Amino acid sequence: MRPAFDPTLYLVTDTELSRPHGVTDVVRAGVAGGVTAVQVRDKRASRRALYELTLAVREALVDAPHVAVVVNDAVDVALLAGADGVHVGQDDLPPAKVRELIGPDLVLGLSVGSADDLRRALALPAGTVDVVGLSPVWGTPTKPDAGPGLGLAGIAALAATARAGGLLSVAIGGINATNAAAVWATAVDGICVVSDICAATDPALAARRLRGTLARRKAS
Amino acid sequence: MRPAFDPTLYLVTDTELSRPHGVTDVVRAGVAGGVTAVQVRDKRASRRALYELTLAVREALVDAPHVAVVVNDAVDVALLAGADGVHVGQDDLPPAKVRELIGPDLVLGLSVGSADDLRRALALPAGTVDVVGLSPVWGTPTKPDAGPGLGLAGIAALAATARAGGLLSVAIGGINATNAAAVWATAVDGICVVSDICAATDPALAARRLRGTLARRKAS
Repeated sequence: MRPAFDPTLYLVTDTELSRPHGVTDVVRAGVAGGVTAVQVRDKRASRRALYELTLAVREALVDAPHVAVVVNDAVDVALLAGADGVHVGQDDLPPAKVRELIGPDLVLGLSVGSADDLRRALALPAGTVDVVGLSPVWGTPTKPDAGPGLGLAGIAALAATARAGGLLSVAIGGINATNAAAVWATAVDGICVVSDICAATDPALAARRLRGTLARRKAS
Repeated sequence: MRPAFDPTLYLVTDTELSRPHGVTDVVRAGVAGGVTAVQVRDKRASRRALYELTLAVREALVDAPHVAVVVNDAVDVALLAGADGVHVGQDDLPPAKVRELIGPDLVLGLSVGSADDLRRALALPAGTVDVVGLSPVWGTPTKPDAGPGLGLAGIAALAATARAGGLLSVAIGGINATNAAAVWATAVDGICVVSDICAATDPALAARRLRGTLARRKAS
């Protein structure tokens, strides 16, 4: 059985942006502020460094077992570090192969940048992918190769299609406390935040602000 | 049971250097010329590209099942692509963890750049590592971060220590048809070649020249 996976406020780590505090302190503070899931992402790190970072993030969250730790791209690292899931992009290993390797119990996320990408994800056998990362909402400096933004209307349409197909969806790319409520209103299951938490002077406060915005919208 | 692994002439691929022919053609030609094992290495490729390259290399060698295909660094790719082994460096995933993930049947190689590195490899539980890659013999332009060369005397000493500890050893770094015999004479179990085959006008001929040098030395 898959662990509970609540992507409401999904922190995606960026090692460079987190430098003032360090990734593990950002994660700890973010979760204290309301982050519900963490994706460890560092495309430039060696596998060893990513493995050690993932272990450190898990250790930092030992008292928050409800917060899933997902590893970006590196399936081997996810398995070895005991992560709760793995997130792959369109250029990473094929989702069906990744599911073979991780077994039925880990969360598998897939980046989706277009209706075509989503169609292919929905055509996979049930239980292959759990959550699609709709990206980018807007262009973002942390992922300059991610293409033009889908916009709020695009996100809303893709989120509805994903839901109809039984997949969770999260939105990523340029989301911050100012626009989070508008993204949340598209009916995605979560919003992903990178710089607005990682680069914050006070990551716990940044997370609390974001989470507050989402809560108000969900109740409306 | 581990498959037979003959590292006598061990081709390590370089996608850029192989560009005139393409990696799969270089591999096919190299094996026709006497290459006994192939390591697929492309540190800059996405996981998806490395996975597809490994599948293509396996397909190119479908009629040469005695030639092991080893994947550099990417344990997930090695497993998914049905490779015969994986090779990790000192900055990649820890060998004992990699062995957990790959099970007992795949070949595990580990780069070793010093007597200290080798001591740590030999201290691992028996059956963790199968082969150590002693590197670099000499400085090499294909791996500028590999540090100063161990030299022939250094290789000979490490190879003897590895053998006494039950590990195979191969040498890598700056080996070509001119110096291969001297490296082979250090009693390593194999020599690794990158540019002398990948960048050759005639990779089959380059492999045949290298292999011939080794054969003469082994008989002496």
